[in-house]
Amino acid sequence: MSLTITPLALAAAVGTGDDLVAHLLDALEVARLSLAPGDLVVVTSKVVAKSEGRVVAFSGLEADKVRLIESESRRVLRRRGTLRITETHHGFVNANAGVDLSNADEGTAVLLPLDPDRSARRLRGEIGRRVGVEVGVVITDTFGRAWRQGVCDVAIGSAGVRALLDLRGTPDANGRVLEATEVAIADEIAAAANLVMGKAAATPFALLRGLDASFFGEGSGGDLVRRPHDDLFR
Amino acid sequence: MSLTITPLALAAAVGTGDDLVAHLLDALEVARLSLAPGDLVVVTSKVVAKSEGRVVAFSGLEADKVRLIESESRRVLRRRGTLRITETHHGFVNANAGVDLSNADEGTAVLLPLDPDRSARRLRGEIGRRVGVEVGVVITDTFGRAWRQGVCDVAIGSAGVRALLDLRGTPDANGRVLEATEVAIADEIAAAANLVMGKAAATPFALLRGLDASFFGEGSGGDLVRRPHDDLFR
Repeated sequence: MSLTITPLALAAAVGTGDDLVAHLLDALEVARLSLAPGDLVVVTSKVVAKSEGRVVAFSGLEADKVRLIESESRRVLRRRGTLRITETHHGFVNANAGVDLSNADEGTAVLLPLDPDRSARRLRGEIGRRVGVEVGVVITDTFGRAWRQGVCDVAIGSAGVRALLDLRGTPDANGRVLEATEVAIADEIAAAANLVMGKAAATPFALLRGLDASFFGEGSGGDLVRRPHDDLFR
Repeated sequence: MSLTITPLALAAAVGTGDDLVAHLLDALEVARLSLAPGDLVVVTSKVVAKSEGRVVAFSGLEADKVRLIESESRRVLRRRGTLRITETHHGFVNANAGVDLSNADEGTAVLLPLDPDRSARRLRGEIGRRVGVEVGVVITDTFGRAWRQGVCDVAIGSAGVRALLDLRGTPDANGRVLEATEVAIADEIAAAANLVMGKAAATPFALLRGLDASFFGEGSGGDLVRRPHDDLFR
């Protein structure tokens, strides 16, 4: 079966305190789509953060930028110029603690949602109440990688989807049992959605249809955070 | 426009010296699909390596496994038990130099292709000659990540697709110029394809249809390898 990924553009900009599910339902209506069982909705952290009021005043000064980044961090792993590789209060290792100056209104910066898994559960619950369909939800942000050029979207929060799919013990095509393999499917979902969402366009939602039924179930974006004691590189 | 990702299952197992494009065309025929302009084909490194004869005898002994991994490495970055975090001769940083004991015949191990970008160009050229359509090609392998749990597929070779899409200087939705952002779209394509390919199934190909036209052009998997002097963590 094919997997289909459809971008859903905003009908209006998302502001502080907005009802994000209303924006999603408007975007679905514009695209003449309705949610069905087995669907998964991807939402960028940017609009989640804006709707939750995670927007702060920002002077534009480099020194203030660094102060803001460090206040959003539990730990700074590396410094280069004004770039910080940070461990956020959530435990994510990313650049500049996810503090985002693009697609923010002049004089403001957008922070990461305080608890993206809780945001995902809330969106899933609210969608279920209004539409009567239980969908998977993945909240994405854009991260760099230690050893690879370029950024990729990853899952910082999720609900109703197994963030890690455990294939250990599954026989391979030759009947031999696979070695330790847990696939970070929520991150793969985030990356896949970014292929249709663009960076600059006002397209903070994507609809995935056709995911394997085994992908749905208990799980959270927090499952994807490597525990510091398992980490060989921190 | 929606992006559609379709898994293409093998009609027969891939062996050393096999014509991989013939396998792909068989798989397309079984799926009743034919290639069209704007299509991109994802191929796992496993079948590329097998068709290119990158298969070696392997005793099954742990000590031989470590010797094999180290011979495929330029440098070993970390050791834990028999796990090695390696920098391969290509420059990839991955686990165990990509030496793969799953989905290999008993008594053998599959290595990474010697030059995955050359393999991708060859596949693209051969598909063009036989079908008369210029498609993008991405060759994937499964990598771990420094700070995140679980593995994701990434692009180790590509042809006809911009591995890195440079969005620097693009205005964002508010007309403000975006900060440095190069999106690793070939890695996002690899991750997306893995959502339909499964780990154990004999599905080494996927067809992506509906990618933005701006994604096609010059580029290679090598573009995604961070130069050691840009690296903050090696």
